[in-house]
Amino acid sequence: MKVGVVGASGYVGGEVLRLLLNHPEAEIAAVTSRQHAGEYLHRVQPSLKGFTEMRFSELDYDRLSDGCDLVFTAVPHGTATEIVKALYDRGVKIVDLSADYRLHDPGDYGKWYGWDHPHPDYLQNAVYGVPELHREEIGRARLVACPGCMAVTSILALAPLVRAGIVDTDHIVVDSKIGSSGAGSGSGTAHAMRSGVIRPYKPARHRHTGEIEQELSAAAGEKIRVSMSPHAVDVVRGILCTNHTFFAGGEPPDERALWRLYREAYGGEGFVRLIRDKGGAYKFPDPKFLVGSNFCDIGFDVDPDNRRLIAISASDNLMKGAAGSAVQCMNVMCGFDESAGLRHTPLTPV
Amino acid sequence: MKVGVVGASGYVGGEVLRLLLNHPEAEIAAVTSRQHAGEYLHRVQPSLKGFTEMRFSELDYDRLSDGCDLVFTAVPHGTATEIVKALYDRGVKIVDLSADYRLHDPGDYGKWYGWDHPHPDYLQNAVYGVPELHREEIGRARLVACPGCMAVTSILALAPLVRAGIVDTDHIVVDSKIGSSGAGSGSGTAHAMRSGVIRPYKPARHRHTGEIEQELSAAAGEKIRVSMSPHAVDVVRGILCTNHTFFAGGEPPDERALWRLYREAYGGEGFVRLIRDKGGAYKFPDPKFLVGSNFCDIGFDVDPDNRRLIAISASDNLMKGAAGSAVQCMNVMCGFDESAGLRHTPLTPV
Amino acid sequence: MKVGVVGASGYVGGEVLRLLLNHPEAEIAAVTSRQHAGEYLHRVQPSLKGFTEMRFSELDYDRLSDGCDLVFTAVPHGTATEIVKALYDRGVKIVDLSADYRLHDPGDYGKWYGWDHPHPDYLQNAVYGVPELHREEIGRARLVACPGCMAVTSILALAPLVRAGIVDTDHIVVDSKIGSSGAGSGSGTAHAMRSGVIRPYKPARHRHTGEIEQELSAAAGEKIRVSMSPHAVDVVRGILCTNHTFFAGGEPPDERALWRLYREAYGGEGFVRLIRDKGGAYKFPDPKFLVGSNFCDIGFDVDPDNRRLIAISASDNLMKGAAGSAVQCMNVMCGFDESAGLRHTPLTPV
Amino acid sequence: MKVGVVGASGYVGGEVLRLLLNHPEAEIAAVTSRQHAGEYLHRVQPSLKGFTEMRFSELDYDRLSDGCDLVFTAVPHGTATEIVKALYDRGVKIVDLSADYRLHDPGDYGKWYGWDHPHPDYLQNAVYGVPELHREEIGRARLVACPGCMAVTSILALAPLVRAGIVDTDHIVVDSKIGSSGAGSGSGTAHAMRSGVIRPYKPARHRHTGEIEQELSAAAGEKIRVSMSPHAVDVVRGILCTNHTFFAGGEPPDERALWRLYREAYGGEGFVRLIRDKGGAYKFPDPKFLVGSNFCDIGFDVDPDNRRLIAISASDNLMKGAAGSAVQCMNVMCGFDESAGLRHTPLTPV
Repeated sequence: MKVGVVGASGYVGGEVLRLLLNHPEAEIAAVTSRQHAGEYLHRVQPSLKGFTEMRFSELDYDRLSDGCDLVFTAVPHGTATEIVKALYDRGVKIVDLSADYRLHDPGDYGKWYGWDHPHPDYLQNAVYGVPELHREEIGRARLVACPGCMAVTSILALAPLVRAGIVDTDHIVVDSKIGSSGAGSGSGTAHAMRSGVIRPYKPARHRHTGEIEQELSAAAGEKIRVSMSPHAVDVVRGILCTNHTFFAGGEPPDERALWRLYREAYGGEGFVRLIRDKGGAYKFPDPKFLVGSNFCDIGFDVDPDNRRLIAISASDNLMKGAAGSAVQCMNVMCGFDESAGLRHTPLTPV
Repeated sequence: MKVGVVGASGYVGGEVLRLLLNHPEAEIAAVTSRQHAGEYLHRVQPSLKGFTEMRFSELDYDRLSDGCDLVFTAVPHGTATEIVKALYDRGVKIVDLSADYRLHDPGDYGKWYGWDHPHPDYLQNAVYGVPELHREEIGRARLVACPGCMAVTSILALAPLVRAGIVDTDHIVVDSKIGSSGAGSGSGTAHAMRSGVIRPYKPARHRHTGEIEQELSAAAGEKIRVSMSPHAVDVVRGILCTNHTFFAGGEPPDERALWRLYREAYGGEGFVRLIRDKGGAYKFPDPKFLVGSNFCDIGFDVDPDNRRLIAISASDNLMKGAAGSAVQCMNVMCGFDESAGLRHTPLTPV
Repeated sequence: MKVGVVGASGYVGGEVLRLLLNHPEAEIAAVTSRQHAGEYLHRVQPSLKGFTEMRFSELDYDRLSDGCDLVFTAVPHGTATEIVKALYDRGVKIVDLSADYRLHDPGDYGKWYGWDHPHPDYLQNAVYGVPELHREEIGRARLVACPGCMAVTSILALAPLVRAGIVDTDHIVVDSKIGSSGAGSGSGTAHAMRSGVIRPYKPARHRHTGEIEQELSAAAGEKIRVSMSPHAVDVVRGILCTNHTFFAGGEPPDERALWRLYREAYGGEGFVRLIRDKGGAYKFPDPKFLVGSNFCDIGFDVDPDNRRLIAISASDNLMKGAAGSAVQCMNVMCGFDESAGLRHTPLTPV
Repeated sequence: MKVGVVGASGYVGGEVLRLLLNHPEAEIAAVTSRQHAGEYLHRVQPSLKGFTEMRFSELDYDRLSDGCDLVFTAVPHGTATEIVKALYDRGVKIVDLSADYRLHDPGDYGKWYGWDHPHPDYLQNAVYGVPELHREEIGRARLVACPGCMAVTSILALAPLVRAGIVDTDHIVVDSKIGSSGAGSGSGTAHAMRSGVIRPYKPARHRHTGEIEQELSAAAGEKIRVSMSPHAVDVVRGILCTNHTFFAGGEPPDERALWRLYREAYGGEGFVRLIRDKGGAYKFPDPKFLVGSNFCDIGFDVDPDNRRLIAISASDNLMKGAAGSAVQCMNVMCGFDESAGLRHTPLTPV
């Protein structure tokens, strides 16, 4: 199958290329970049040297839709609204890696992003790209909106809990930690100032809150609020979400019941690993042990003194948090084996 | 004044030496280490080369108490119980950097540390070493127990809030992030496995919870529970505590009232900086900007959607979190200028 | 084909497992570890969770040689001498990742390692495992000794130069920089002390010098001496070798002639990339852009003022510097496609 | 004494401020920045919060020279030529941290920097700011040009060797490794791309070569050529120079003679530490153990097989490599104790 990639000069676009170059079913037909048109891919993405002699081309909607069955759009938030619409109108399948089609309610763009969506009627065409929650819809979709990296990591940990109704939905605290590649290649903070930080940013009202609330509310069947605070830490790839919850009233479930809940949710999933080793080196999720892979690792601990359940989830922000989810969604949309091109063992240590 | 240091081969002990070598009032009279007796300090603490030609000596209680007016004990938790008692009985002033005399209630040692305190009657002699909370008692004390590094960082952020009674004391979530020097020099995780981690450890029932609850309960005048979860991140020095709280019932205070609360608490303190820049590079505390100094930086953000107040605090775990607090306490105990030997500007960038 | 792995609890062994689990021709039949016998692999190598349910077994020569066609030995230097011999005597093919069979001259073990080789007559059975230099011999070999990580990285950069006789062989300075995973998982320096170092170790007489001199002498047809000095830097994976050479007498070759030399040597090689971009992000080799792959990247610069040719080479010390070379050698020994199981795109950024 | 700082928004300028704020003799009278005029210093240099309420002012030559006895200029290379001249003409003492007055021969600016110096006749007024080599001239100087960070680190290691005539001056290889703060705060490479690098840049003809050759030639009394290659590594502060030399003809000196040479050169110096521990944690210089201090640590190893002497030197690029040297020079120029305001113990670990 022929695929195109729009906007492949950043970290996410580079990761999409890495995956597609090794994908058994997909063949890259076009890669566009306004800034780099005419240049070899490997001049901008040096790690790809030896894997392709392709060059960047200009973005041309007709050529893309004529030459491709599916297009990945990996452009900055706000700039995908038009590109996705133009491609959608031409009938091509789209996996969008921006935030521009993630939220179903047009009003949420005003609330979380501060702008009005120019094509609110197209939002209903988009499926939120988490196969673990929306596999069938994704299978039927022409437009999939890949989730935010911190959002999907939290959602997967929390969805089984809110669906089962066992946590107090007024006090869900999501404390996220993320590496520097989550910020995009353009917005680079200089190494000397970014190294060694443990830096809160947007402790209140971070944009990913909107997605998390949308998805958890759908899972719970009621409006869920989430108290999310992200932090920048000194790592390149990786997200850890510490999802602090408190049990709802009544006798709290015991640990075995909680594991059962997670097994029922994810026992058959290829990209969720449940981490429950009592000893060993890996008692709780840590992105260190999944870098380069498409896994979301989930585990938990219980704090009986405070009726607290700490659900912990980890992912590689460029994989399950972006390009990996995108390819996984493509696989579902196109009827390929869902793990095609995604069976990477994590790279450890790195 | 003559001071001694017991156990100066680790990171904390090395930091105590760094501070004392530059202290205008203190003179190091003895430095003991069982393992390194006879060796030059700078063979074990290479950064001190050029500052001292002292050698480690064996621990000898009588010589220490005869030759020193005050002794710092920087030995592993559990091994200070006897050393502190022996020195206390000989009449010397002590600043203990272990956890062994921090908790006032002997039962708390069973609960948080899993052992019975061998000298429970001595616990009442110890003052918890946070001058911002207990300056007068420290001034009169012969034994000061320096706080845990994550504990003091959280306590300073939360004490004004619980004292004012404005937060819901059932849902205080303390999410802490800490560097590798907080783990002590003995227990080294190999670099390759510790680099790049975002690793939860003891998400429930971490030992520092006991101290935090003790101090916040005293501040509030009621029993306070804290839901604390620490994480190891890839930095050497530094702690960030994200203290998620929810406003108690009624109209929440506005931001100006909150700043007033913090200013009243710390406006006159030399080692607490309130961080409230709306723009600039430093909107919220980040240990990056205080490494090497004795500051605890405090700031906050408000999440009105969830009635949440995120109090954020940062420190250098070897300074305000250990050796800096210890020297600050010595200064108070001995009537020196409280900032003597502690006016280090942070080292930035590093 | 059935393969075994002896000693798979370290970083190198873990990397061998990562590669074999995804190898199209090899099937892991046994993994031994004295320390971890009976445990699941993924308890010791957490990143493998989800890829295998195998357990470590005890080392049993007969069972290994009966059940396996080829065995990888990834045990510490000095402990492989017996294991390799025992397996060799039983007729199984061996790829040894230790230094114990790399040097052809028994006397070199005394010189570089300080011990006498217990089975000097077996040294002649071993081929030095660099397919780019010894492909045919490896194809016929029963025992291949994988090269040292810094050694192979330097050798590949220097071999074409000494073979062509264009550099002054009295002044070859190899300045190497290496990450912490090159030191093995046992010998972990604590993170706090290893972070941020730029640390020379063994500036003179490092053991890898012996291998480099052996291989370059063979390439040149004369005795070559190398002045090698390694340094530990703050990265987990990666090696950079800055190979400073001076042109031999006469008119020095121009840059095009030098590129021709390298192209002739490696133009057909799948795992050597020649880096010669004049602009862009990647003007010289940097391990940053090949982490996780089996590449050795080679480039150079010329310093006409000093008649100096700086040949620069980079690799991932666990891949081309260890497990990647091992699997590449297996492929050659067994007649598989040489790149089978090794077509990993580098993971960037990481 | 009143001092001014021109260009204090970068890393070097910030470090100058850190030192001056704690200097017993100097008082900061003015700090200028075109970009930040009117802003508080601590908005741009957040670590200074609590130490000063000064604001940046516009650069005004007359006010600076009227209000200050000495001015530090910390502006980018090429932009200091005019500023230094204007201040010099007004009679104020100047310590320049740019490269613009380091080279004595005007032709060297064309060779190494690619531009003609606009005020070549002023070059003779400047003394190269290494007190260990030029203390008396600095004491008489009105204009001191602080050395390049890698240059001074190499020069101090090599000067005693070339002065004694014991090394082959055709084959001096200086392999330097440096952290990200050496690149200036403006030119930030994004953290994700700069982390984990071991990146050669300018392997031939790096600008600092010019300074090193100038100073070593003066020390040796003959023209010395240096083969220098710098590398970027993943650390914020710190430089290591591995200075590979080969003994000149004849019987090489033994180690004791070499130590004697270094002791004679630096035995009385307050900011050079000779590192010669045979065991312990610190056998060779490593910037890890001097971060935050003004030391240059020097050690060496001998490689008898190759008649090679590896002189190793380390420094903190913002201290001895910039601001520390600048303040040291000020102290000498003004007759203060040379170590005034510079007795910082290194911060370890960090």
